[in-house]
Amino acid sequence: MKRILVINPNSSGAVTDSLTEALAGLAGARFDCIRIPESPATILTEEDVARAGIRVAETIAADPGADAYVIACFSDPGLDLARSLTAKPVIGIQEAGILTAMARADRFGIVALGPASVARHMRRMRAMGVIGRLAGELDLGGVSAEDAGRSDAVYARTLEVGRRLRDMGAGALVPGCAGFAPRRAQLERDLGIAVIDPVQAAAAIALGAVVA
Amino acid sequence: MKRILVINPNSSGAVTDSLTEALAGLAGARFDCIRIPESPATILTEEDVARAGIRVAETIAADPGADAYVIACFSDPGLDLARSLTAKPVIGIQEAGILTAMARADRFGIVALGPASVARHMRRMRAMGVIGRLAGELDLGGVSAEDAGRSDAVYARTLEVGRRLRDMGAGALVPGCAGFAPRRAQLERDLGIAVIDPVQAAAAIALGAVVA
Amino acid sequence: MKRILVINPNSSGAVTDSLTEALAGLAGARFDCIRIPESPATILTEEDVARAGIRVAETIAADPGADAYVIACFSDPGLDLARSLTAKPVIGIQEAGILTAMARADRFGIVALGPASVARHMRRMRAMGVIGRLAGELDLGGVSAEDAGRSDAVYARTLEVGRRLRDMGAGALVPGCAGFAPRRAQLERDLGIAVIDPVQAAAAIALGAVVA
Amino acid sequence: MKRILVINPNSSGAVTDSLTEALAGLAGARFDCIRIPESPATILTEEDVARAGIRVAETIAADPGADAYVIACFSDPGLDLARSLTAKPVIGIQEAGILTAMARADRFGIVALGPASVARHMRRMRAMGVIGRLAGELDLGGVSAEDAGRSDAVYARTLEVGRRLRDMGAGALVPGCAGFAPRRAQLERDLGIAVIDPVQAAAAIALGAVVA
Amino acid sequence: MKRILVINPNSSGAVTDSLTEALAGLAGARFDCIRIPESPATILTEEDVARAGIRVAETIAADPGADAYVIACFSDPGLDLARSLTAKPVIGIQEAGILTAMARADRFGIVALGPASVARHMRRMRAMGVIGRLAGELDLGGVSAEDAGRSDAVYARTLEVGRRLRDMGAGALVPGCAGFAPRRAQLERDLGIAVIDPVQAAAAIALGAVVA
Amino acid sequence: MKRILVINPNSSGAVTDSLTEALAGLAGARFDCIRIPESPATILTEEDVARAGIRVAETIAADPGADAYVIACFSDPGLDLARSLTAKPVIGIQEAGILTAMARADRFGIVALGPASVARHMRRMRAMGVIGRLAGELDLGGVSAEDAGRSDAVYARTLEVGRRLRDMGAGALVPGCAGFAPRRAQLERDLGIAVIDPVQAAAAIALGAVVA
Repeated sequence: MKRILVINPNSSGAVTDSLTEALAGLAGARFDCIRIPESPATILTEEDVARAGIRVAETIAADPGADAYVIACFSDPGLDLARSLTAKPVIGIQEAGILTAMARADRFGIVALGPASVARHMRRMRAMGVIGRLAGELDLGGVSAEDAGRSDAVYARTLEVGRRLRDMGAGALVPGCAGFAPRRAQLERDLGIAVIDPVQAAAAIALGAVVA
Repeated sequence: MKRILVINPNSSGAVTDSLTEALAGLAGARFDCIRIPESPATILTEEDVARAGIRVAETIAADPGADAYVIACFSDPGLDLARSLTAKPVIGIQEAGILTAMARADRFGIVALGPASVARHMRRMRAMGVIGRLAGELDLGGVSAEDAGRSDAVYARTLEVGRRLRDMGAGALVPGCAGFAPRRAQLERDLGIAVIDPVQAAAAIALGAVVA
Repeated sequence: MKRILVINPNSSGAVTDSLTEALAGLAGARFDCIRIPESPATILTEEDVARAGIRVAETIAADPGADAYVIACFSDPGLDLARSLTAKPVIGIQEAGILTAMARADRFGIVALGPASVARHMRRMRAMGVIGRLAGELDLGGVSAEDAGRSDAVYARTLEVGRRLRDMGAGALVPGCAGFAPRRAQLERDLGIAVIDPVQAAAAIALGAVVA
Repeated sequence: MKRILVINPNSSGAVTDSLTEALAGLAGARFDCIRIPESPATILTEEDVARAGIRVAETIAADPGADAYVIACFSDPGLDLARSLTAKPVIGIQEAGILTAMARADRFGIVALGPASVARHMRRMRAMGVIGRLAGELDLGGVSAEDAGRSDAVYARTLEVGRRLRDMGAGALVPGCAGFAPRRAQLERDLGIAVIDPVQAAAAIALGAVVA
Repeated sequence: MKRILVINPNSSGAVTDSLTEALAGLAGARFDCIRIPESPATILTEEDVARAGIRVAETIAADPGADAYVIACFSDPGLDLARSLTAKPVIGIQEAGILTAMARADRFGIVALGPASVARHMRRMRAMGVIGRLAGELDLGGVSAEDAGRSDAVYARTLEVGRRLRDMGAGALVPGCAGFAPRRAQLERDLGIAVIDPVQAAAAIALGAVVA
Repeated sequence: MKRILVINPNSSGAVTDSLTEALAGLAGARFDCIRIPESPATILTEEDVARAGIRVAETIAADPGADAYVIACFSDPGLDLARSLTAKPVIGIQEAGILTAMARADRFGIVALGPASVARHMRRMRAMGVIGRLAGELDLGGVSAEDAGRSDAVYARTLEVGRRLRDMGAGALVPGCAGFAPRRAQLERDLGIAVIDPVQAAAAIALGAVVA
């Protein structure tokens, strides 16, 4: 059986557990979800992203036997670097989440955890060459990845932001974090448009790459 | 268990069988591969695409119980129409193949079966808003989808075209047809860059959508 | 004298008559305006567009002696298909209306009949590669093509929407329907910017193609 | 009867006569073709273009009774300036030629008279926001506008360049000068793709604007 | 010592003096700031821009001994023309201001003096191929270049507009006029993002070109 | 006097000395050129770039008294990270070289040291939103930054590549390395188009930012 290494670039065990849960429904390969103990509990700043990128690459280099790798942080830390070190598939969840949304609807919206992420995402989407498909990006005013998937108050805010993005033309929505899976189906029902969990999207693409 | 309806828009049983084989490695949902008996054996002309589009939509409307749909022809016939008829995921293999290639490398190349397809793909990639990631598209001079996956002579030509696309900067390659799966892994080894079978790519995205 | 076939893709005789009136001022070729009796009275849904596209193409194929063809519905049904069947000029009114607006001013605005059309137009403008010139698109909240050119209440709404698009930077306006000709000149005077009737724009381009 | 002022920005009477001939087939309005006696016989340099632009604007301002204006030089001298001085339609032949080509086929090619024009056209097409539709631009190595429409040797070269552009994906061709009309139909037959005379294209758009 | 000719395209001595002051801090070359006595005191209309462009080019041609040229009006009058007349560096302040902002932050904002300039800037930024980096452009409602740098009331409005552009994602701001230098540092402190004086930006690029 | 810290991200003293020489002509501020002793002698791989990025940011954080910073490696390592740590100007030489070329001519060309850099530059130019201005990028087949500025054999190859880029439409050329300054003026004379040394370009922009 093929093995896919899912790397949580931060050190939080709770986040790592939530990755395992989010992927429980996917069969056909083994998903090993690991954290990076040397990292902080959350990846917040540009510096966190840069340092996490190097650790992610080291983690990948240290496990050359995996069949594919998923980087499970919406900043896609170390993605280009990791690809230069291995010929095996390396999938970033920001890229996978957005690309999967583009396979579901004409324009997509992003729900960012906080305002600071928006500029980083814009730069990345421009580099990805997909910004012409963006209906809009709005933020939740600063919440943690954990709360994004668990807090009811945060869910209410997410729903409101999702409605505004839908009115701006979004036919698919991508929450910009690794922890939204527990609420994905509910938000999809409440909004009536596709909601993509980026971790599940990345895992499915990785699965397709290894079992094909 | 979730069920994904994979529609071969033409009437060829051989092509339909090859779809079933291509998806044999994907677990976690049932893939029902069907053909459209009223269609011609191959979808070649713009008229074939337009007529197939309506039949694909009718086929989807006639099986509302499926959990997701894959349109298994690289022209994505009926994709927008089908999405207007159901809220369930409808995945086109051209879109899925290209988007998956974009999750694997910075620029992608397309191998078209013949010169007539190139203009149609260009228009579609412009509508998809992804043409900035295209390293190039070259064609095989006119071969059938079946030969693309089975003939040794066609494979030799595909390899040569693939080398030229790699030299033009492609880090991932998408064969522009539904029948390439039997040769995917070999071409990937021979070229040293990712090769995406668009049927498998679409199926993996559909799988991610229904089991998540 | 050259003959231009102007195809109303729906079955409404009133709409067909309005096409004839809209083109009364153009000399130098004969404009034959016909309807498609098998079509519904209005083209509303994606399915209407897809089915109309095939009928439009059949209509063109059935009259190979015409010197040029105009498809007089803002969704341009069957445009690519028809072009694959004849080497003679086939002009769509959405394309012609937008391109003519681009020959008149730097940025253009679109007035859509209802919200559902906006997403379809966005996709089309992206495929046309002209979305960088769009100042904005706003809709009238759901009105029929016939009312667009005849109802005073709808005109008042159109004027208001036109003012907002002008404030957003539009130097030329394109009403997104085939029936606006009776009000074109008045709206141009009331707004002080160019207003393009897409049927007249398409006919003029067709005329230029056949009498040149 | 409406009157359209067609301004030849250079002083050549022969070029002016050829404009009158090119528009002989268009009925429904009067086309007055005039030259600017103070201009040089050809518009070649950036300085020629800049000086011609001011004279074109003065010429338009001196004839406020015309119903529309056509600037009949492929550099579109004075187009933005003229539009700032009158609310009537001002049509440039480069813009009109390219936009009309976009109403005929997916991608277009430009045949430039000489290499120096290519950079100017590229800049203009980027400003027009249409460069995504350009299949390619090739030049004839330096010929005059007059020879473009009359010399057999130049026609042979034009045909060769046209074939290369067609192979590069052009479905419509725009000769980049005001004097190609006498050869338009022949080149269209020889190439099998649409050939747009930009003067006729501009005149047809102007006609549509005034008689609608 | 190298000599850089800084051309104020209008006839105002006050504006010319302010250019000299703005460049007082730059060493390593001599900056000669001159005005064009035949020009109006302000460049306002498209006609002013076109006529100034020819005079700027004549001014450059009349002083071939300078090592570089700066055109100190935000409309960059005569920029392309001047470049066709000399191989020496010719720097326009709109281009330089925007490009320097792009060297400081991901997205930039423009503060225009009045609403009429916005459309002109949009067209120019599209031609420059940089509009993807624009966070937004807002105008001050119609103020003179002189007031932009000296009036307290105008400064208050500039600060308010700057705050809105910062909220729209601008990481660097470019005031769209030649006279803002006296307030640049203060606005940068008040906003907390980079503020680029386009005259100083153009001069620095010219300096780099001649002393390198 | 203002002080600009010019950081050579590698450990080579020779490269650092060449930076000092390249900036000898720029007056008005002090340029302190330093190297990073912990870095390798050359920045070659993606991993080198990622690790250098963190060291560059640490170096900047360790000298908060400088008035501006220049990152003198064409991969711009650590640019976004450094900007998140300080509000002072941080200028990358790839960005500055390209932006300065855009202030000199309509389209620019890049001369890369080797083929591996081309993909990295393409991704970066797409993220910069400036790829529409790229005439082309060609590489020298693999040479060191030091040889780029000193070896006669490499110069001959650079000249040949520069001629091809000029023929592809480049009006300004950017050598893709930190060591080309000694040959800049000669290549400019030999090619007859602007040649931009990216280190000098970045330093001039930094100078403009601090002394303005």
